[in-house]
Amino acid sequence: MRKIGIQELDDIALGAALLGSGGGGDPYVGKLVALGAIKECGPVDLLSVDEIPDDAFIVPIAMMGAPTVLAEKALGGKEYKTLYDMVSRFYNRQIFAFMPIEAGGVNSMLPFAAAARLGLPLVDADGMGRAFPELQMVTFTIAGVNATPMALTDEKGNSVIFRTVTNKWTEELARVVTMSCGGSASVSLYCTDGKIVKQYGVRDIVTRSEKLGRAIRSVKEGAGNPEENFLAASEGIKLFRGKITDVLREVRGGFNFGKALLEGIGEYKGRSGYVEFQNENLAASVDGKTVATTPDLICLVDTETFNPIPTDALRYGKRVLAIGLKCFESWRSPEGLALAGPRYFKYDLDYVPVEIRAKEALSCTGLA
Amino acid sequence: MRKIGIQELDDIALGAALLGSGGGGDPYVGKLVALGAIKECGPVDLLSVDEIPDDAFIVPIAMMGAPTVLAEKALGGKEYKTLYDMVSRFYNRQIFAFMPIEAGGVNSMLPFAAAARLGLPLVDADGMGRAFPELQMVTFTIAGVNATPMALTDEKGNSVIFRTVTNKWTEELARVVTMSCGGSASVSLYCTDGKIVKQYGVRDIVTRSEKLGRAIRSVKEGAGNPEENFLAASEGIKLFRGKITDVLREVRGGFNFGKALLEGIGEYKGRSGYVEFQNENLAASVDGKTVATTPDLICLVDTETFNPIPTDALRYGKRVLAIGLKCFESWRSPEGLALAGPRYFKYDLDYVPVEIRAKEALSCTGLA
Repeated sequence: MRKIGIQELDDIALGAALLGSGGGGDPYVGKLVALGAIKECGPVDLLSVDEIPDDAFIVPIAMMGAPTVLAEKALGGKEYKTLYDMVSRFYNRQIFAFMPIEAGGVNSMLPFAAAARLGLPLVDADGMGRAFPELQMVTFTIAGVNATPMALTDEKGNSVIFRTVTNKWTEELARVVTMSCGGSASVSLYCTDGKIVKQYGVRDIVTRSEKLGRAIRSVKEGAGNPEENFLAASEGIKLFRGKITDVLREVRGGFNFGKALLEGIGEYKGRSGYVEFQNENLAASVDGKTVATTPDLICLVDTETFNPIPTDALRYGKRVLAIGLKCFESWRSPEGLALAGPRYFKYDLDYVPVEIRAKEALSCTGLA
Repeated sequence: MRKIGIQELDDIALGAALLGSGGGGDPYVGKLVALGAIKECGPVDLLSVDEIPDDAFIVPIAMMGAPTVLAEKALGGKEYKTLYDMVSRFYNRQIFAFMPIEAGGVNSMLPFAAAARLGLPLVDADGMGRAFPELQMVTFTIAGVNATPMALTDEKGNSVIFRTVTNKWTEELARVVTMSCGGSASVSLYCTDGKIVKQYGVRDIVTRSEKLGRAIRSVKEGAGNPEENFLAASEGIKLFRGKITDVLREVRGGFNFGKALLEGIGEYKGRSGYVEFQNENLAASVDGKTVATTPDLICLVDTETFNPIPTDALRYGKRVLAIGLKCFESWRSPEGLALAGPRYFKYDLDYVPVEIRAKEALSCTGLA
């Protein structure tokens, strides 16, 4: 157990934003909410997974919706108390701790706000080890855990409890309600026992985010080439470096869909690439060859600051470094790929781990 | 208290279909569901409002969705038990009786199916005295009763509990979930105390439906002109008689919108009329003059059988008699008109009671 205060939040938000793979919301927005709660209510106890009893009732906290909306539509402030009351009452169980469900600029932070406000500890684990666009895409689905009963509430005070026959139905119904509530809502889902979190959760995700954030911040202080330092610190596989020449966007079905076109710079001069996204980056391509796909993480960072760039902040002229990160191992299983592999997102491609795919593709194009 | 068995159902369904004002679903479909339940589980005890204790917990049962869908998408059979369990658990109260919430071919019948299957009595009252397209349009909204906590379940086994800040928000959220579930869902809403039902419910609606149904069936047996008999039995105000020349339809936002164009027959020869609907008939017009509007009931019946014709059964060539019926008195109050008057449905018209409006309009056009 350790205390997470204001100092630690910066690094966690920054590192989680990288793991957000372009999604999971703006870390600035997320951090403001968590900062406010910790300033008002004090630091949060972060528990490692091994510190929670098997029969402890663990309740994830997240925001659902299109990240573009999150930046403009504020929280009401009472959401976490409402979720706490709904979940406690519906399950008729005492909540032992909150937990994040995904990494990302916003969804790494909101659980801290909830934990601070309700005086509960937070578990250092989540259900993705990254961000994904649809709510059934969690390791707990692979484990057969039902997303429901799921609680949802909005800033106006509307609240809904879902109980569905599959996690895909949860996604369907919770998504339309979220859209009707104005595009974002606060949710608790995959409420489960400590034992399940130990078996299937992505362990130490907060600590990993914090280390990543700290590393990004100190990249330029180290000796040698900052980009090399960044790749070493993040364990990133370099995919492309380029300038954004266009961003095609569409908000559809409550998601931000789009494609960022890139023109190579530096050693990539004369080459072109693109990244496609549905809230999160899904696939990256260089000179027509796919270099990385979901469920591996595709992250775009600023070439100067190495700050991660969420998909809704992609703009013409920005210079970006695209990297690939290995996803949590469960995602590479057949069940994981069925949930969040390239074919689920309508790509006519088999999944190839990024460390192999990137190398092959880049050697074909003479880049590696 | 009296027993409602198979014999009574026919008349209740027929009369309720007339009060459905074109909506509330096909009485044939509704009756099949209720018949099945009563055959299997026995007759249902119908309680008059005065027979229920003030503190009895009364739970309405209805189907939500576009009537066109109800005719094609069956019930799963477990919906009422699911609603019973959800409501009992969420309110932590023992259900004393079920109740219909609207009159109409389907929603007058499903509460009988629920009552038979769960072995509960049914209260002889509802919240409309007719059918309306949106769920906040009930006398209980005028009384300030919250529609939520509301329970919703579909035939697949998905279930949802809503708790909203206004009844308009209930409509919004429950509607999108209903649409996602395939266009129809079973619901319990406006769960309330016996005292409230006594004060604000539309009393004796089942008994009134039954009498109306019996009267329609015997119209042709009486002496004299069948149409005159029908008007006398239904207390209907004659608006038009004509042949349908076209029906314009659109399914939008989970509703059946449309307009039926009529060419006069008999004493209306050479004249034209139309009826506009959103699930239920909203306004009727003769020679360009509005003859009736919501919240009064506009009902189209077959000119030969006097059977009510739901909006989704309107077809080219059908000969129809259009009548107006006075709505329940609460609908004529300022609060009632705000909820379900012509302006709510975007008509630039003040409400005028049908008995006055029809007379004035018809005298203008030389018809009365």
